[in-house]
Amino acid sequence: MGTSDSYKPNTVTGAAGYVLEDVPHLTDYIHDLPTCSNPLQDNPSYSVVKQYFVNADDSVAQKIVVHKDSPRGTHFRRAGPRQKVYFEPDDVHACIVTCGGLCPGLNTVIREIVCGLYHMYGVKKVLGIDGGYRGFYARNTITLTPKVVNDIHKRGGTTLGTSRGGHDTNKIVDSIQNRGINQVYIIGGDGTQRGASVIFEEIRRRGLKVAVAGIPKTIDNDIPVIDRSFGFDTAVEEAQRAINAAHVEAESVENGIGVVKLMGRYSGFIAMYATLASRDVDCCLIPESPFYLEGPGGLFEYIEKRLRENGHMVLVIAEGAGQDLLSESIQSMGKQDASGNKLLQDVGLWISQEIKDHFSKQNKMVMNLKYIDPTYMIRAVPSNASDNVYCTLLAHSAVHGAMAGYTGFTVGPVNGRHAYIPFYRIIERQNNVVITDRMWARLLSSTNQPSFLSAKDVIEDKREDEPPTQMLDDEQYSNDNYMVNKDVCHAS
Amino acid sequence: MGTSDSYKPNTVTGAAGYVLEDVPHLTDYIHDLPTCSNPLQDNPSYSVVKQYFVNADDSVAQKIVVHKDSPRGTHFRRAGPRQKVYFEPDDVHACIVTCGGLCPGLNTVIREIVCGLYHMYGVKKVLGIDGGYRGFYARNTITLTPKVVNDIHKRGGTTLGTSRGGHDTNKIVDSIQNRGINQVYIIGGDGTQRGASVIFEEIRRRGLKVAVAGIPKTIDNDIPVIDRSFGFDTAVEEAQRAINAAHVEAESVENGIGVVKLMGRYSGFIAMYATLASRDVDCCLIPESPFYLEGPGGLFEYIEKRLRENGHMVLVIAEGAGQDLLSESIQSMGKQDASGNKLLQDVGLWISQEIKDHFSKQNKMVMNLKYIDPTYMIRAVPSNASDNVYCTLLAHSAVHGAMAGYTGFTVGPVNGRHAYIPFYRIIERQNNVVITDRMWARLLSSTNQPSFLSAKDVIEDKREDEPPTQMLDDEQYSNDNYMVNKDVCHAS
Amino acid sequence: MGTSDSYKPNTVTGAAGYVLEDVPHLTDYIHDLPTCSNPLQDNPSYSVVKQYFVNADDSVAQKIVVHKDSPRGTHFRRAGPRQKVYFEPDDVHACIVTCGGLCPGLNTVIREIVCGLYHMYGVKKVLGIDGGYRGFYARNTITLTPKVVNDIHKRGGTTLGTSRGGHDTNKIVDSIQNRGINQVYIIGGDGTQRGASVIFEEIRRRGLKVAVAGIPKTIDNDIPVIDRSFGFDTAVEEAQRAINAAHVEAESVENGIGVVKLMGRYSGFIAMYATLASRDVDCCLIPESPFYLEGPGGLFEYIEKRLRENGHMVLVIAEGAGQDLLSESIQSMGKQDASGNKLLQDVGLWISQEIKDHFSKQNKMVMNLKYIDPTYMIRAVPSNASDNVYCTLLAHSAVHGAMAGYTGFTVGPVNGRHAYIPFYRIIERQNNVVITDRMWARLLSSTNQPSFLSAKDVIEDKREDEPPTQMLDDEQYSNDNYMVNKDVCHAS
Amino acid sequence: MGTSDSYKPNTVTGAAGYVLEDVPHLTDYIHDLPTCSNPLQDNPSYSVVKQYFVNADDSVAQKIVVHKDSPRGTHFRRAGPRQKVYFEPDDVHACIVTCGGLCPGLNTVIREIVCGLYHMYGVKKVLGIDGGYRGFYARNTITLTPKVVNDIHKRGGTTLGTSRGGHDTNKIVDSIQNRGINQVYIIGGDGTQRGASVIFEEIRRRGLKVAVAGIPKTIDNDIPVIDRSFGFDTAVEEAQRAINAAHVEAESVENGIGVVKLMGRYSGFIAMYATLASRDVDCCLIPESPFYLEGPGGLFEYIEKRLRENGHMVLVIAEGAGQDLLSESIQSMGKQDASGNKLLQDVGLWISQEIKDHFSKQNKMVMNLKYIDPTYMIRAVPSNASDNVYCTLLAHSAVHGAMAGYTGFTVGPVNGRHAYIPFYRIIERQNNVVITDRMWARLLSSTNQPSFLSAKDVIEDKREDEPPTQMLDDEQYSNDNYMVNKDVCHAS
Repeated sequence: MGTSDSYKPNTVTGAAGYVLEDVPHLTDYIHDLPTCSNPLQDNPSYSVVKQYFVNADDSVAQKIVVHKDSPRGTHFRRAGPRQKVYFEPDDVHACIVTCGGLCPGLNTVIREIVCGLYHMYGVKKVLGIDGGYRGFYARNTITLTPKVVNDIHKRGGTTLGTSRGGHDTNKIVDSIQNRGINQVYIIGGDGTQRGASVIFEEIRRRGLKVAVAGIPKTIDNDIPVIDRSFGFDTAVEEAQRAINAAHVEAESVENGIGVVKLMGRYSGFIAMYATLASRDVDCCLIPESPFYLEGPGGLFEYIEKRLRENGHMVLVIAEGAGQDLLSESIQSMGKQDASGNKLLQDVGLWISQEIKDHFSKQNKMVMNLKYIDPTYMIRAVPSNASDNVYCTLLAHSAVHGAMAGYTGFTVGPVNGRHAYIPFYRIIERQNNVVITDRMWARLLSSTNQPSFLSAKDVIEDKREDEPPTQMLDDEQYSNDNYMVNKDVCHAS
Repeated sequence: MGTSDSYKPNTVTGAAGYVLEDVPHLTDYIHDLPTCSNPLQDNPSYSVVKQYFVNADDSVAQKIVVHKDSPRGTHFRRAGPRQKVYFEPDDVHACIVTCGGLCPGLNTVIREIVCGLYHMYGVKKVLGIDGGYRGFYARNTITLTPKVVNDIHKRGGTTLGTSRGGHDTNKIVDSIQNRGINQVYIIGGDGTQRGASVIFEEIRRRGLKVAVAGIPKTIDNDIPVIDRSFGFDTAVEEAQRAINAAHVEAESVENGIGVVKLMGRYSGFIAMYATLASRDVDCCLIPESPFYLEGPGGLFEYIEKRLRENGHMVLVIAEGAGQDLLSESIQSMGKQDASGNKLLQDVGLWISQEIKDHFSKQNKMVMNLKYIDPTYMIRAVPSNASDNVYCTLLAHSAVHGAMAGYTGFTVGPVNGRHAYIPFYRIIERQNNVVITDRMWARLLSSTNQPSFLSAKDVIEDKREDEPPTQMLDDEQYSNDNYMVNKDVCHAS
Repeated sequence: MGTSDSYKPNTVTGAAGYVLEDVPHLTDYIHDLPTCSNPLQDNPSYSVVKQYFVNADDSVAQKIVVHKDSPRGTHFRRAGPRQKVYFEPDDVHACIVTCGGLCPGLNTVIREIVCGLYHMYGVKKVLGIDGGYRGFYARNTITLTPKVVNDIHKRGGTTLGTSRGGHDTNKIVDSIQNRGINQVYIIGGDGTQRGASVIFEEIRRRGLKVAVAGIPKTIDNDIPVIDRSFGFDTAVEEAQRAINAAHVEAESVENGIGVVKLMGRYSGFIAMYATLASRDVDCCLIPESPFYLEGPGGLFEYIEKRLRENGHMVLVIAEGAGQDLLSESIQSMGKQDASGNKLLQDVGLWISQEIKDHFSKQNKMVMNLKYIDPTYMIRAVPSNASDNVYCTLLAHSAVHGAMAGYTGFTVGPVNGRHAYIPFYRIIERQNNVVITDRMWARLLSSTNQPSFLSAKDVIEDKREDEPPTQMLDDEQYSNDNYMVNKDVCHAS
Repeated sequence: MGTSDSYKPNTVTGAAGYVLEDVPHLTDYIHDLPTCSNPLQDNPSYSVVKQYFVNADDSVAQKIVVHKDSPRGTHFRRAGPRQKVYFEPDDVHACIVTCGGLCPGLNTVIREIVCGLYHMYGVKKVLGIDGGYRGFYARNTITLTPKVVNDIHKRGGTTLGTSRGGHDTNKIVDSIQNRGINQVYIIGGDGTQRGASVIFEEIRRRGLKVAVAGIPKTIDNDIPVIDRSFGFDTAVEEAQRAINAAHVEAESVENGIGVVKLMGRYSGFIAMYATLASRDVDCCLIPESPFYLEGPGGLFEYIEKRLRENGHMVLVIAEGAGQDLLSESIQSMGKQDASGNKLLQDVGLWISQEIKDHFSKQNKMVMNLKYIDPTYMIRAVPSNASDNVYCTLLAHSAVHGAMAGYTGFTVGPVNGRHAYIPFYRIIERQNNVVITDRMWARLLSSTNQPSFLSAKDVIEDKREDEPPTQMLDDEQYSNDNYMVNKDVCHAS
């Protein structure tokens, strides 16, 4: 899916270092497209709003909301309704597809794309693609109306079905063309957004008047640029249930250890926030923070210390933590037993086994380990109130963008303002916990766990005379930017 | 712990086949014990009750409540307050211990023994033994007052701590004797009750005025004689959460399979009732009903059929199901990899792997399996309203029994009336799902799963002219007796 | 709706005092009705069950399960599948209607009538009547299939809609006749069952081959004969949430009083069981137990005492408690203000006001009252696991009965066995908390509230020499029979 | 409590319009106070953080994070740990008090002040004041240690107790002085913060080395300057339960109307966000948006329309909505009946009665209204995960501030950065929903309710050529600023 050569980022520079990384627009490749006035201007709900429509020049900074003349750094086009739209409501034929793993809020996003199109713009034709990308060419479709989607936000999962992979660009674009679809809403993670980017490229190549809008989905919150991803707040909340259970189990026996595996293949946000919220966790292991088991400053030493002090402990581990240790460990076991090994690739089962083995070897202490993997119970819950509001804003931003003729974009809040972001910025890298930021320090302080860093790893310069700006910028663009502005997202 | 020779069941026979399997009493081995009148007779709460005290001759039948002169079958002594008690409230020094795995309701039972002794009888001295049997000689104790236990029923686990094993009869009885304890309340499963039985034997041998009362605990509901065990209703309720998640996961993908492992090492009651309550389960596997994987009528065939028909399925498996298949399977793998094998002894992980292997071998169908093990999340929740009421009645029955001088007994509802049951009846066998009863037929009918029985296995006699009494008796004493009278327990 | 003269109870007497209060059968008034063999006999799920079909002579005693030759007292016909059925599955055209207030479990009963008819008997035509009785002649109907009802048990309320009243017998029976309906399932309270009885009468008068089956619904558990009503267990559970909140509010302020109103117009079962389950309630007021406010032994005195002792208190009041005091109070206020008075007819608002007035008059103590009325939040929740299983059995019993040609009956568990009960037994009186039974004594003992009985009210005879049988019988048929056999209902 | 003359705002101006509204510091009135180095610098948890300590010049803008030299508008001192502290840990004697109504998160704030002082600074002496302000001089105190507060965040309410009023400045400061307290943490609403301000004034007047820190509490989110208040997210979540119930009740009957009253005496944030999250609400009434009942464009007309279109509706009303109508209505009733009138001052009961009266007068339609007031059930729940993290950051910010010698300040996030804000800014006015902002437009659009504005009320200027900055500023400082940066609060 190499799109790098085909697509030229649409970058505008202004005075004083202003850079706008703009998203494509249908008029980039279709000329003389007619517009019509936005039906919202006759909507009584909006008649009271001062300045309802987004100004043509509005952009959202990665740091603050500014306009073309207010300089400094990278900006994105501001999301929201435009005075002119490029689709007559009666001509719109939209489709929605969900791809990848489950995430709380999928149904709310689907519902609000349908209801937003219908109630805000009077669009009546919306199609649900069944079962992910391959549903474009292999499956039946579902007619989506406000009535059909009325209650789906109260259920977990995705009413459209989902799958991984199945991306065949040409067959998908053929299907879009054949069905006469002119707005495509694609909900999925970074792989899915990469696919959306290629679909957009092909559509542009064919010169079709089809807007492609991505809604980024990742329960792990590891999408860059945007403040947080939908479903994350719900996941942190639901994770409390597992941590509580682990704590009850651990507390009720002598030397009880409760181990909870949480989602997070490449980033430990869920584990970190679930730990901070619970106040019951003694150790939190995430992919970003390497750790080791044996020896001074290692995990085993710390576990022994906690058990001696407190009689029990709770350990939270993100699914992507300790992958280096794990693969080492599996290699050393040899390859005799395929199925057993496969199970041990589950980091939660692996670390539980390592801890058990350590204590049975030591004979110093009897301990009692209980392992909980709530992953699928977390993914399958309906979104909570906070995520429901957020998903609504995401969906409406996407609808406003597509109606206004933007295409090849994803939506998301950037520093608290919803923006249209080009695909390449979303898929180029991942958002990670920065372990030299304060949030991680707060976690370490609340758990009292070791940092697993040797002296030389530690960045030592903490003098007051250093330019403080540096710190703020670091922080802003790293660890916290998603939660700093968690619900920021509520005001586009 | 061979007590069979030492203890002679205290069996009384009456007219017309009346058999009372009585429990021991302190006066069996301590003569001339003085009694005093029950302080409850001055309690205004009970002054309105007609006939508050239990009649000396009352017994509870395994079928119905009858008295000495009303014949037919086995009876147990009816639980409840007696007009005379064998302990002066000020002289009572009680202790409580919890043993074995966690179960919702442990804290409610503890609370209500303390509050029952205090508020009903004016007993002030209650000791909590810390961490199971070994806490008698190895740990600090906890002073229990109504204030200390006031809120514990809202928390899961056991405030006293628990452990397995650690039973050293002599050291325990020494500790009881040294501390001057004269009422011992022991909450635990069949192993624990066996231990309680031995403690009682030793106390009797030493001639101590110490009442030993057992409160049977098993989340699996596999204790015989009694109608149901505490925590079971809560467990079935909490299991719904995991089944729902499995259903959402399965429904959201093509050929999705959700596998949920539930508790039940020897009996499948939780799996059966959770399945009946959910209405989302397509197959329920329990220890009592053997099954096989391959070939016609086997599990794989059924899974394929459900996926073809319905696109997804949910499978619930009790932890003790399919043990024969599992051990076969592990043997065939050889013994190279200890830790991998250990994991495969978890029936949920094993069956998930078998299903995955089958489908990847077949290449017929792609399927998508999600495995959920909610065991520790279920065990650790606080008891629900129904179990709270039940635990209260159990605790109060135990207190009434000990105050009245009974010893060497367990408490529990028998056909809806609380009774005192000799230890040997509780520990001699297990309560199981009877797969030739209607409840299991209802389950089969609701899931449409195969019975996994070959023609010859089926009991064929279903003629109407057969004496119907037989059926009723069968049913009464088998499958359903615990749920038939689930909350029966509410009226002693 | 005077049916007393028209309908002759179908009572059969046997040896030794055996009385069977039988339900009507289509053959009572339609002769030479052909039968066919029950399709269940070919159902593989039931092939393993010994003695699946109910014996022609089986009956259920109000005390125990016995048969025609085993005497003693009143019996009802046992529920369950019959070897012969009076409807060809293809000819069945069933309808379902729900009437009266909401109750957890309505949707499960609807679902299981549909699925039971479909899966057990192969019946395909089931109609939902929209919005209660008046839906028969005034509204559109809903086609019910297993697919349509598949998820409804996870939602509260009734998918069919409901209403009160609207009963026009002739128009309803005309509608039944015109539509060719031959099985009518009516879910509702005592008023609704009275209506069902009249419909049955009219159908019999017209000689129609139409089976009328009632499923009794009352969240208050005040239906006589049967062990408990569906939704009750869920309601008690959900009530805990309100009581907890009241407790938190009361505990957090000086002299805090939390008042919770619970359902129960004529009987206080929900209030009583919610109180027993919570352990946080200091006073529970129910319709069956009169109380008074002022003077020694009165409510105000008790409240003052609790506040002095404990600093806060929680009071639970059933909606029908203290009606005499309330109407007195309203009369004394005069009739000036209609709307204000109307509000005061809410016993929760009234008692809260009385308590506030008392304390402000006294000037002795400042107190802080918080009033919670969770009624509609309780009624609207989906049924819990225990009620789901129970509703399934109720629905299936009704289906078996109608298929077997019984008519004019309601279903419900009697002493733990599902039975067919003639309408007149369900509607003739109400089930009440018996305040001279032990359950109420347990409540008094757990709350320590006054009994509000003056000395002369108390039944004094509590001597041991009284025949104990009396007591047992009393208890069996009174207070506890519903909860004694709460889930009894699980085994028909 | 007139403090206006006594206290001079500590305002610093800088270049280019920079204004810092600083908070007081102990050194303002106590000279030559010694400092010591912050114990955190030896804390291994923080050793990895680049630039842990806050720079002396850091401030937080009401718009963005900037420093002294970066101009534009009002700033507040940035919260966080300082390199130098003005208290030796061993000398600190802190106290905590909670005042006013319950709010989810109170216990988490208490817990984290105690744990923050203990674990971050090694402070051992923390006192809990019992029952609000009057607890300073009238009640026993509670010794607070990490062990005592370990589990309190899992319970609702406040473990310290609370009350309204009871503020006697001199007696409070005497008590502080007599007990040797030198850090006072005051958690409460605007009245409480006003009290805290006066206490600070008196302490300064007496020249005491006592730091006074306020933590603003308001479940209604109506505190100005800060982004959101703790407990708000939990309240919006919990309100869903009531709205769902109202929806189920309304949907199940013909012309069903569900009315839910939510908190919000002066601002409608909870009602607005609960409505946006639910998607089931047809009308939301808040104090900021006047409405009328009768006539065209009025509430009754809209209700009739929704019932005709949809058969049912849900109405959410904030407790402070429609106060003008309500007082009019009560006056017109006369003053005969005190208690009835008092009830009608509850806007939920009042509007329910008005709707009922309207429909019964009209005789056009039968309708069916169910009223739910979940207020106390919402206030009493424990805080959710998101609020737990937020409360932790609030508490730690307060602790860092007091240790660093700041006093007379409240803490809270301002545009996503925690800041120290002078009391006068918090208590001078209220945060309100701005009904000319987009969030309210979104609500109107999702409910389709009338705006209740006549043509002349509407601000008409919506031309694109208007300076867009205006809009952004408006928005920033009004409607959304709390939710825009809802969890902003997570990164100080």
